[in-house]
Amino acid sequence: MSRSTAGPEIERLIQLLARLPGLGPRSARRAALALVKKKDQLLVPLAGAMTVAAERILTCSTCGNIDTSDPCTICSDPARDTKTIVVVEDVSDLWALERAGAIKARYHVLGGTLSPLDGVGPEDLNIESLVSRCSTGEVAEVILAVNATVDGQTTAHVITDRLTGTPVRVSRLAHGVPVGGELDYLDEGTLAAAIRARTPF
Amino acid sequence: MSRSTAGPEIERLIQLLARLPGLGPRSARRAALALVKKKDQLLVPLAGAMTVAAERILTCSTCGNIDTSDPCTICSDPARDTKTIVVVEDVSDLWALERAGAIKARYHVLGGTLSPLDGVGPEDLNIESLVSRCSTGEVAEVILAVNATVDGQTTAHVITDRLTGTPVRVSRLAHGVPVGGELDYLDEGTLAAAIRARTPF
Repeated sequence: MSRSTAGPEIERLIQLLARLPGLGPRSARRAALALVKKKDQLLVPLAGAMTVAAERILTCSTCGNIDTSDPCTICSDPARDTKTIVVVEDVSDLWALERAGAIKARYHVLGGTLSPLDGVGPEDLNIESLVSRCSTGEVAEVILAVNATVDGQTTAHVITDRLTGTPVRVSRLAHGVPVGGELDYLDEGTLAAAIRARTPF
Repeated sequence: MSRSTAGPEIERLIQLLARLPGLGPRSARRAALALVKKKDQLLVPLAGAMTVAAERILTCSTCGNIDTSDPCTICSDPARDTKTIVVVEDVSDLWALERAGAIKARYHVLGGTLSPLDGVGPEDLNIESLVSRCSTGEVAEVILAVNATVDGQTTAHVITDRLTGTPVRVSRLAHGVPVGGELDYLDEGTLAAAIRARTPF
């Protein structure tokens, strides 16, 4: 877009929107236009919500979750099982597990996966803080809820190694057929894992 | 997402982001997370850019373009041809023509297309203001740069009717093969139009 068309304010808004995941230059322009058109319904409230978020959102120093309090709501919830820590790669995975209501335990957010090609080593992830949480004797089980990707599984192995010597039991998510999934659309690896892990009916 | 996971601030940010075109609930969560993670590089600047845009962006009372001044930069640019008005459906179309550098004329933004099914009638579009701009005698030509859709063409016909009696000449964009386009991928309507409008080589 030439700068003369809509001025540097819109240009800057588009450039910043284009840096959001899922938005490219074209969709950023569409989003900027929608914002300007719906100024009172969308632009002003969103600017306000972002300002509030920037002022109030913190990273939990215990688990790495994001929240407005530190320790976060989950870490300070007395109704949760304190003996179990679910290890996730990212806050989005924590949110996914919470949406599923899968478990009422505490979490530990690694902040990524080991990826030697991208230069991400063990020191770049929150692994040491996990080891110290597991060394106090309060935690009985660590569930590795990392993605079933090569990087995720490598990370799981490294964490398991690092937790040797602590009193915790390490488990990982089951592999198998997704609920509602059709066998015809599943890859061979998943089907083989589902056969191996078959359960009595 | 349960509200207990990340608090109402994040929840509200996600809900507002999900109302942007091109973002759904899942991508809005990803965007919110990216914003919170890149607080200083992205969240704070974007909140600021939105606040500035909300305060300073206006709609040009002459042509309907958005800008920080009224009349807009294009309408007040003395270097532009004042005898020609390019009629577009939306500001995004104006931006597209400006990016292409296709013409240095003035514009008129209709604010949509006629769509009886959606309840959009001629009175909902900026047609009357176009007619009054064309009645002063200063404008010699109106180029209808509306989309080549059924609604766009209907709108073009209605505008042409309304401009009868004003001293302007009405033209429309040429149909044909897009530059760089391959015939094999084009629809029959475009190919037929390109044959009909063939030019000497």
